[in-house]
Amino acid sequence: MAASHGHVCHLLPPGYKQMVRDWLTEDCPSFDYGGFVVGEDAREARLLGKSPGILAGVPFVNEVFAQLDCTVEWHINEGAAFEPIKHVATVKGPARKILLGERVALNTLARCSGIATKSHNLLSLLRSSAYTGTLAGTRKTTPGFRLVEKYGMLIGGADPHRHDLSSMVMLKDNHVWSTGSIAGAVGAAKAAGGFAVKVEVECRSEEEADEAIAAGADVVMLDNFGPEGVRSSAGRIKERWRARGRGDVLLEISGGLTEENVGEYICDGTGVPPFLLLPPFRLSAKPMI
Amino acid sequence: MAASHGHVCHLLPPGYKQMVRDWLTEDCPSFDYGGFVVGEDAREARLLGKSPGILAGVPFVNEVFAQLDCTVEWHINEGAAFEPIKHVATVKGPARKILLGERVALNTLARCSGIATKSHNLLSLLRSSAYTGTLAGTRKTTPGFRLVEKYGMLIGGADPHRHDLSSMVMLKDNHVWSTGSIAGAVGAAKAAGGFAVKVEVECRSEEEADEAIAAGADVVMLDNFGPEGVRSSAGRIKERWRARGRGDVLLEISGGLTEENVGEYICDGTGVPPFLLLPPFRLSAKPMI
Amino acid sequence: MAASHGHVCHLLPPGYKQMVRDWLTEDCPSFDYGGFVVGEDAREARLLGKSPGILAGVPFVNEVFAQLDCTVEWHINEGAAFEPIKHVATVKGPARKILLGERVALNTLARCSGIATKSHNLLSLLRSSAYTGTLAGTRKTTPGFRLVEKYGMLIGGADPHRHDLSSMVMLKDNHVWSTGSIAGAVGAAKAAGGFAVKVEVECRSEEEADEAIAAGADVVMLDNFGPEGVRSSAGRIKERWRARGRGDVLLEISGGLTEENVGEYICDGTGVPPFLLLPPFRLSAKPMI
Amino acid sequence: MAASHGHVCHLLPPGYKQMVRDWLTEDCPSFDYGGFVVGEDAREARLLGKSPGILAGVPFVNEVFAQLDCTVEWHINEGAAFEPIKHVATVKGPARKILLGERVALNTLARCSGIATKSHNLLSLLRSSAYTGTLAGTRKTTPGFRLVEKYGMLIGGADPHRHDLSSMVMLKDNHVWSTGSIAGAVGAAKAAGGFAVKVEVECRSEEEADEAIAAGADVVMLDNFGPEGVRSSAGRIKERWRARGRGDVLLEISGGLTEENVGEYICDGTGVPPFLLLPPFRLSAKPMI
Amino acid sequence: MAASHGHVCHLLPPGYKQMVRDWLTEDCPSFDYGGFVVGEDAREARLLGKSPGILAGVPFVNEVFAQLDCTVEWHINEGAAFEPIKHVATVKGPARKILLGERVALNTLARCSGIATKSHNLLSLLRSSAYTGTLAGTRKTTPGFRLVEKYGMLIGGADPHRHDLSSMVMLKDNHVWSTGSIAGAVGAAKAAGGFAVKVEVECRSEEEADEAIAAGADVVMLDNFGPEGVRSSAGRIKERWRARGRGDVLLEISGGLTEENVGEYICDGTGVPPFLLLPPFRLSAKPMI
Amino acid sequence: MAASHGHVCHLLPPGYKQMVRDWLTEDCPSFDYGGFVVGEDAREARLLGKSPGILAGVPFVNEVFAQLDCTVEWHINEGAAFEPIKHVATVKGPARKILLGERVALNTLARCSGIATKSHNLLSLLRSSAYTGTLAGTRKTTPGFRLVEKYGMLIGGADPHRHDLSSMVMLKDNHVWSTGSIAGAVGAAKAAGGFAVKVEVECRSEEEADEAIAAGADVVMLDNFGPEGVRSSAGRIKERWRARGRGDVLLEISGGLTEENVGEYICDGTGVPPFLLLPPFRLSAKPMI
Repeated sequence: MAASHGHVCHLLPPGYKQMVRDWLTEDCPSFDYGGFVVGEDAREARLLGKSPGILAGVPFVNEVFAQLDCTVEWHINEGAAFEPIKHVATVKGPARKILLGERVALNTLARCSGIATKSHNLLSLLRSSAYTGTLAGTRKTTPGFRLVEKYGMLIGGADPHRHDLSSMVMLKDNHVWSTGSIAGAVGAAKAAGGFAVKVEVECRSEEEADEAIAAGADVVMLDNFGPEGVRSSAGRIKERWRARGRGDVLLEISGGLTEENVGEYICDGTGVPPFLLLPPFRLSAKPMI
Repeated sequence: MAASHGHVCHLLPPGYKQMVRDWLTEDCPSFDYGGFVVGEDAREARLLGKSPGILAGVPFVNEVFAQLDCTVEWHINEGAAFEPIKHVATVKGPARKILLGERVALNTLARCSGIATKSHNLLSLLRSSAYTGTLAGTRKTTPGFRLVEKYGMLIGGADPHRHDLSSMVMLKDNHVWSTGSIAGAVGAAKAAGGFAVKVEVECRSEEEADEAIAAGADVVMLDNFGPEGVRSSAGRIKERWRARGRGDVLLEISGGLTEENVGEYICDGTGVPPFLLLPPFRLSAKPMI
Repeated sequence: MAASHGHVCHLLPPGYKQMVRDWLTEDCPSFDYGGFVVGEDAREARLLGKSPGILAGVPFVNEVFAQLDCTVEWHINEGAAFEPIKHVATVKGPARKILLGERVALNTLARCSGIATKSHNLLSLLRSSAYTGTLAGTRKTTPGFRLVEKYGMLIGGADPHRHDLSSMVMLKDNHVWSTGSIAGAVGAAKAAGGFAVKVEVECRSEEEADEAIAAGADVVMLDNFGPEGVRSSAGRIKERWRARGRGDVLLEISGGLTEENVGEYICDGTGVPPFLLLPPFRLSAKPMI
Repeated sequence: MAASHGHVCHLLPPGYKQMVRDWLTEDCPSFDYGGFVVGEDAREARLLGKSPGILAGVPFVNEVFAQLDCTVEWHINEGAAFEPIKHVATVKGPARKILLGERVALNTLARCSGIATKSHNLLSLLRSSAYTGTLAGTRKTTPGFRLVEKYGMLIGGADPHRHDLSSMVMLKDNHVWSTGSIAGAVGAAKAAGGFAVKVEVECRSEEEADEAIAAGADVVMLDNFGPEGVRSSAGRIKERWRARGRGDVLLEISGGLTEENVGEYICDGTGVPPFLLLPPFRLSAKPMI
Repeated sequence: MAASHGHVCHLLPPGYKQMVRDWLTEDCPSFDYGGFVVGEDAREARLLGKSPGILAGVPFVNEVFAQLDCTVEWHINEGAAFEPIKHVATVKGPARKILLGERVALNTLARCSGIATKSHNLLSLLRSSAYTGTLAGTRKTTPGFRLVEKYGMLIGGADPHRHDLSSMVMLKDNHVWSTGSIAGAVGAAKAAGGFAVKVEVECRSEEEADEAIAAGADVVMLDNFGPEGVRSSAGRIKERWRARGRGDVLLEISGGLTEENVGEYICDGTGVPPFLLLPPFRLSAKPMI
Repeated sequence: MAASHGHVCHLLPPGYKQMVRDWLTEDCPSFDYGGFVVGEDAREARLLGKSPGILAGVPFVNEVFAQLDCTVEWHINEGAAFEPIKHVATVKGPARKILLGERVALNTLARCSGIATKSHNLLSLLRSSAYTGTLAGTRKTTPGFRLVEKYGMLIGGADPHRHDLSSMVMLKDNHVWSTGSIAGAVGAAKAAGGFAVKVEVECRSEEEADEAIAAGADVVMLDNFGPEGVRSSAGRIKERWRARGRGDVLLEISGGLTEENVGEYICDGTGVPPFLLLPPFRLSAKPMI
């Protein structure tokens, strides 16, 4: 979606170049023995796409090779689909510097394109079910590598959702317990975040959703409602609050979605968060007795 | 394999704590609005394993919560197999600090356990085919996150293979072209790396393998030989060099292996590198004309 | 305002301790000659408030001295008003370590309390004019020191407004020119930021405000409307859009406000950004001809 | 004063560029949503001086924009006085990069020019009272931002005084208590700092000043002597020690000076430290009983 | 030795530039007073070699001055021998920038050339005694400066030996005690390091050496055997294991070698680690009773 | 000398702990294979002094082991002389952590004690020639390691001299050429450094020394005067300026001093800078034609 308005690479902050520097140091902490063997003769290398996908990660690869005095010429654009074996780009530079950047660049491109491809495919599936809403990501990203992964989601057409704990506030049962009520939790969140930060509340029933909206929540997540529950509740909530002048409230659904069942959830005005990975762990907090 | 000799966590360098610090900052660059809502009342949370797997990543999770003044009690050991839903660990501490660490800890545990599980499953498959050799990893890891991923391989029973460009030298066609011959490339690698660093050569034929071993290579990779080629060549090479007093040379096979076809490759004395991910890109270097 | 819901210090991210470490290194890059003279005998020091104000910065001062093995006992609470000469806190520890932290701690406390005091005083002035809206900060903070300054605003009762360019999007004339229309700019912002990020538009007329709201802006800034303009336009805009089911739109006013004239601007539903400092420079961008 | 001998920007260390890098990251930790909206079309922006002052901070602003591939053309020189509205500089570059640097550059320029202006004004006041001595700064600077603030003092004509605890030693009552006598404290300071480091002693009476000079102090601070005390004591001390061949000893006065009363202190051979800010806190150390 | 295969500077990792940046900051943490005095007029300076030696450290010096916008023209090559007074290089650039880099560059060049010279001289001594083996370094390097010192060894013709604890495993008596036997220790090392990492064992007798080789050690160190012991044992061990098809095992000798007595140790197949420095301390570990 | 006034370790800045952290990471960038072998059984190790010397570096060694959860008990004090083999300290902790710190600690202790020993021996030699002046160090230290080396000089009784370019200004021929005269250079240095920074001038003749002192230099270096020249000139200069009320001016001699000839230079009121190392390089700047 973003890609239809401009270049997603214009979202990148100045600091990502330091991140690339750290990646290169991770892959070569002291001597580069192979680099000694090949030397600095001018060489040319091809980046080949070996499975079908959406290309993503161009600015990171460009920076990897720029730091190594190499140039990259791309033969397809960021966000384009390709079929294997595709000659995606040509890298030119001193032999040892191409090899210093090779693995780092490919690892980045593979992961970023993989996420873009997965996001794009899931979104296509939803669109083919006539879903017109948003597909959003999560914070379930690789520690230290979130910028690249969120960037891949954007290239694939997904909404990056909140980037970190300092972005949109998400209130779960723990937050509600601590303050005694949904209204109390929303009030506290707005007091600290101020008018610049959105507030989302995870709700387990229509009643909780109503309480959250009444308290001023910007987004309500229907958590584990199941396909049937989502379809019926989402419609009722939307209608009820449109009548009260809160047509702006956003609904989000989460929990138990898979590529197989996602079609069953489709209805108006919901956003579907994809599972980037299916991590086998979850934190289940409970109040101390 | 390592796990049968000691605690794999004893391999970790002092510096991994700084890495954990950076992960926490990535997930909370400025204010923690949710933390304000929940405050610092004492809380208890459970880590639940929600799909079958091998637990891996304990020292990283411990460090995440130690930096946040929380404690973690583990109910199963690092490296143990578990079935969902498994109550894997209990975290205790101030509410906001549990939540500051939650996502970082789960993201780490999910990825590390995922790699351990995949390594363990592939190794089991090989062992059930009577393979007695080594299963080794690659450098195809997430930039900035290699330590965790290599650690997961070790927990799952795989050999971490070379950690970075400053470890074992691997010579490919590029290196050979630069020096004019396999013998020249091996000689240069040994001149720079000295006697402390092993040298591996990627070979595309038995003749190349012989040339590499004669030049003093410690490891020879049979690249894209196919199942049939591997089984016949590996035996011949091993036999030929054992007769010449080089019974120590190691063979490694790579290229085109999948969980489906790996059994076909099994023969004496080979190591099989797993694909951590199947990245859609490969660098294909060629000399400039 | 936040302070009435919980402890503002619970907003601080884990990373602020590294910031304190850097401050201490700035003030002592190599040898501490004075530290040699006083040695490590146990000492006790008092922090004295020497002008009337609101205390702010307690967690930063605590961290300064914690890193130096000293303890701090506070005699008044964060956010409390005090009159000089007030014995605010007692620091105990080895003589040289108290002195290593002294200047860093006082500099932090002075700036943070100064901002809290100024925010509190301006808010009091507004409240005494029956203003019930929000007083919000800006990004006009000292480079590298924003966390402390935004924290001081919160203690003083102000809304921190957007923390950085990665928080709420603010669209100015430049953004509008680039996309050709307010609607285009808002659409692009929402495409990239997704539903988790608010969008604010600086408007120079009621027509622009209407266009922005119609395009989905969450906040509209009335820029340089003057007291009269603000009072009449703000009411009309609010009324017009409440009728269309957009009662949630926020108005913000900015430009030309001073402590002297701020009362003239008061009307329903506006937020008034304070000037932290009155910097003598402004960037005036214009399109190239 | 420095400005009449050369370019003050030649004082800057190589490391300030990293500081600028950190400032940019503070203002954009993850995505730059506004940058996506404006894109990279070539733009031109003007820096306008909006209140009268002395321009200071040029090298920092240059570095901010250099890191963002923009150029800055200055229309007045560092250190020049200007009246509002003054078109001070023109920035050219890609739209989103100008905006990435805008706030950081203005915040730096505003603070640096503010300090230069205040220093210059206070010095002019002193010169108009026929004061020929030095006006010196303090360490009461914003943590992490001292280099910019001391630079501003130099541009404004003030003496930066000691930069940090690793520069000139300053001995206060605490130091004297620890060693038992002024002579003991001066001796210890000289033993550690060696002949390369100056030693200053804060004195509360003429007797203490004499003891300090006799012990070899390079600078003596008359602390809280009041205008009358300063004028009479300063003359007597100077005269007494000139007779003993120590014409080089420097006197400094401090405590209770304001823009209003500073003229009353004027006499030969004293240095007047300005108050950068009037922080409401002071550390009052006392020995434990 | 490396130098005869290629350019040793091709071994340097991308990260060494950050190291140079830190060196420059160490030598100029805040203002550069001398730089202010000399300004930025174009200047030319000569690097003079003032004692006989082998030039080493060229890439570090180049980077020092490149970061300071100066150029360096070298009049002799890295690794060349020179006699004093030799005009080794010419530096051109702004006066203050030459002086900012001067001391850092000379300190680096002096240390690196010193190590290269010492390594070269010791190797020449060994070669003149008809020794054809390897001369290897140790980890007894200056903390934080190892890359430069190992680089100097390589230029001087020595083998850098293992770079750090993450390179080749070295097993000493402590490791053996912990696992109960040499075989146990070697097995554990191979389990963790995998086939990419070599294993060396320090042995105090021929029996231990045999046990280590049998367990699969790649290198055996004969520790404190004395000249006579080395000559007799080394031959016997080599012969014994060649007969068993382990002609590849490497012997290393260490302990008590000096420039004076090193000739007495010469025999087939040993490597002699030089003492970079003769540090007066050694760690002697013993198990707790 | 410092040691007779207090504990030299009280001079250390808070930041040296980060330096120790970096050293540990240098010696173990990824896995610690040996650590896996030995595990975490409690162990005890002895630090042995193996050549005669002065112990120096205790706080650095303490920090190395504190970061690794080990304790150190010292059997002799910092600064004490010892004869080999001396059991200097006992380290206790988990086996693998003792070994992680071992090499870093010994390398630090060896270098720091080496410098302390050399400083102490040279000072003893001077004192035995009835020299009562100061022995001072230089900036000819290992890049990144200066704090430890200057600390070692202090323990050995030497004056650390200026720590870096941001400490005392030293004016050489380059500075003088740039400004046209010694007086101009001293004036510029004082204008920028202010009254807190000392100014030293390298002089090649008595006339230059007189000009420097007249211009207000705090220290005058007699550069390459030779033993005879130093003895005669130093006396004359001192006498001449004492008569003019500048009894405070310091003389320093440098150039061509060795342990062998240093006695010939002895006379009143000079300081002798030692050569930490004899680096074979010198920068010889000359103005461009």
